[in-house]
Amino acid sequence: MSTPKIVILGAGYGGLMSAKGLQKELNYNEAEITLVSNHSYHYITTKLHEPAAGTSHHDHARIPVQSVINTKRVKFVQDRVTAIKTNEKAVHLESGKTLAYDYLVVGIGSAPETFGIKGLLENAFFIRNIDGVRVLREHMEYSFAKYQTEKKDDLITIVVGGCGFTGIEYVGELVDRMPSLCREYDIPLEKVRIVNVEAAPTVLPGFDKDLVDYAVKYLESKGVEFLLSTPIEECTEQGVMLKGGQEIKAATVVWTGGVRGNKMVEEAGIETMRGRVKVDEFLHAPGFDNVFILGDSSLVFPADGERPYPPTAQMATQQGQALAKNLSAKIRGREMKPFKYEAKGTVASLGSKEAIGMVGNRKLMGGSASFMKKIIDMRWLFLLGGISLVIRKGKF
Amino acid sequence: MSTPKIVILGAGYGGLMSAKGLQKELNYNEAEITLVSNHSYHYITTKLHEPAAGTSHHDHARIPVQSVINTKRVKFVQDRVTAIKTNEKAVHLESGKTLAYDYLVVGIGSAPETFGIKGLLENAFFIRNIDGVRVLREHMEYSFAKYQTEKKDDLITIVVGGCGFTGIEYVGELVDRMPSLCREYDIPLEKVRIVNVEAAPTVLPGFDKDLVDYAVKYLESKGVEFLLSTPIEECTEQGVMLKGGQEIKAATVVWTGGVRGNKMVEEAGIETMRGRVKVDEFLHAPGFDNVFILGDSSLVFPADGERPYPPTAQMATQQGQALAKNLSAKIRGREMKPFKYEAKGTVASLGSKEAIGMVGNRKLMGGSASFMKKIIDMRWLFLLGGISLVIRKGKF
Repeated sequence: MSTPKIVILGAGYGGLMSAKGLQKELNYNEAEITLVSNHSYHYITTKLHEPAAGTSHHDHARIPVQSVINTKRVKFVQDRVTAIKTNEKAVHLESGKTLAYDYLVVGIGSAPETFGIKGLLENAFFIRNIDGVRVLREHMEYSFAKYQTEKKDDLITIVVGGCGFTGIEYVGELVDRMPSLCREYDIPLEKVRIVNVEAAPTVLPGFDKDLVDYAVKYLESKGVEFLLSTPIEECTEQGVMLKGGQEIKAATVVWTGGVRGNKMVEEAGIETMRGRVKVDEFLHAPGFDNVFILGDSSLVFPADGERPYPPTAQMATQQGQALAKNLSAKIRGREMKPFKYEAKGTVASLGSKEAIGMVGNRKLMGGSASFMKKIIDMRWLFLLGGISLVIRKGKF
Repeated sequence: MSTPKIVILGAGYGGLMSAKGLQKELNYNEAEITLVSNHSYHYITTKLHEPAAGTSHHDHARIPVQSVINTKRVKFVQDRVTAIKTNEKAVHLESGKTLAYDYLVVGIGSAPETFGIKGLLENAFFIRNIDGVRVLREHMEYSFAKYQTEKKDDLITIVVGGCGFTGIEYVGELVDRMPSLCREYDIPLEKVRIVNVEAAPTVLPGFDKDLVDYAVKYLESKGVEFLLSTPIEECTEQGVMLKGGQEIKAATVVWTGGVRGNKMVEEAGIETMRGRVKVDEFLHAPGFDNVFILGDSSLVFPADGERPYPPTAQMATQQGQALAKNLSAKIRGREMKPFKYEAKGTVASLGSKEAIGMVGNRKLMGGSASFMKKIIDMRWLFLLGGISLVIRKGKF
């Protein structure tokens, strides 16, 4: 019998943790492991709001994949997946190549959920990957630069759609960035408008009210305008049209209003809900005992809950770790253990010095929450590359 | 008899040197001196190609006006001149104010000479002032950032119109900037195109042939393409159309092809040639013994020549120095001395380490020319603000 082929799609949190776990668990003759990613680097999605606002360089939010995996054990292929063919047990790549698999681990991330808002994909920016946030940052800077020559207020108006985690964290970074940005382009700080628009009636829905109040008060004190219970009807080249007919003219519109599963999973003939796959306790795709789905494309439900856990880096990381153990067990003919998500707390940064968070039942705000956020960032670096990566990439 | 009012328009080389000379020559009861500029800062035009390419920050190319004049002797008014009314002996300002003068010194700079090329003013960038080069730099960076998401070659193609001094110096800076710019946006350096287009058959027309050859060879070795004897017919949003029908698609088109006088001078009823005023030996506007024209709006002819001297910072500086002495003499009832331009040499930089130049009859190239260029820059800082400004702003 030949060595089983494991193909991992995506070098995000789930994919990388799977690869790192498998390279540790399995001997070289137990499996051929291949990791496929369209970028040569992993990007730290939970930090993308920083380079998006320009408060840190995008290189602080990416790590070369080959620097954190053992390339003798895991073969890295930089290519774009174009199709998953479950009937052929193969993956098709943009280069024209195909990769046969015995076991497939799918961690290819999400797509923006636009809720059918017209013009959003064409005219808004998204905080989703390095290339995208770099364009967003440059677009904002270019718009600010033009203010002195064109004197139009929309050039220095930023609309952020969505008051969820990404929206709030991005707005927090913008607030940090504005003083130096305005100095750079000779713009009076008070002329800048940052408007955070949300269809739901609250900021950070589901989060502790005291913490939300703290965050809103802090951001408002820095000039951020919140428009709650205000759906965006359309995004145009000029800005956004709100429900009720109000228009906000803004050169920069950033949509953070949610994600859905990657459509390639649906196209693979796997049953999905809004592009996401309700996986079983072993993270199997329904009906496939050799296909596993991790991260943003998976849906995991709590034992007692009706609403799935939100798709987070923490979830994907734990799934990757569990998958590596389970798949190793399966290959060795042992029993797999049901995956249980363990919520370790959630912290949302509000720029570099402020944050809010829940760790266990403890509410954190201000400096202590901000410190906790840095610890969480470092933990991921430690999981990826040990203490040396923490030292190289960590923000102290 | 009341104290004569001297109004100086423009804080460029000519205007600032006039102000500094007059504040030194005249006692406080001999004249009221007012300096008008639409910016709070003087910009060092001869260095603008650096921030335009992004090889240095734009703050290195500007100096607050009030830091280099004696504000007890010279009143500084930050406003935009909208009209010069020689019949009223007054200047109209954007704020609605008017300034009466007994003596007027006009150093309000130039406008781009487009030679009637269609679309140039709308679609090209110009290396003319701080606001403009900041937008140009940001536009280039934004275009480069988009390359990873849009993969269009025109995003990383830069067309520079004009192979005169500004064109060549800007191209030299671009060549210096490209390696780091490409690293920043994950672009292979060899994919970038820099095309320098010139209607005339030579680079730097009128300059020593050996030096021109040196410059062209150096820039070509860095990948610059020269298209000589190639007039631009039209500049569009997509790039340039060349004579003969060839199109170069380029996101960034920069026009350095020449300057003409400021049209406000013409509108003042002063006789001009292409917007410039052929001044007499005392820098008088023809027919006015109380209006002086300096810098780019003036035309000075050599004693034996038919072609006027080119409009340079060196010319404007010497005019300002001479004007201050002559106007002081006139106010005191003494005789004015004819202005004689003294060519002190010309150096064109090719990035930070290379240059070509003529100083007297000596040809300079490479490091020695580059060193001379830095000395010339420092000399201007010294004239403006003494040794302390040289230390603060000089590049060593």
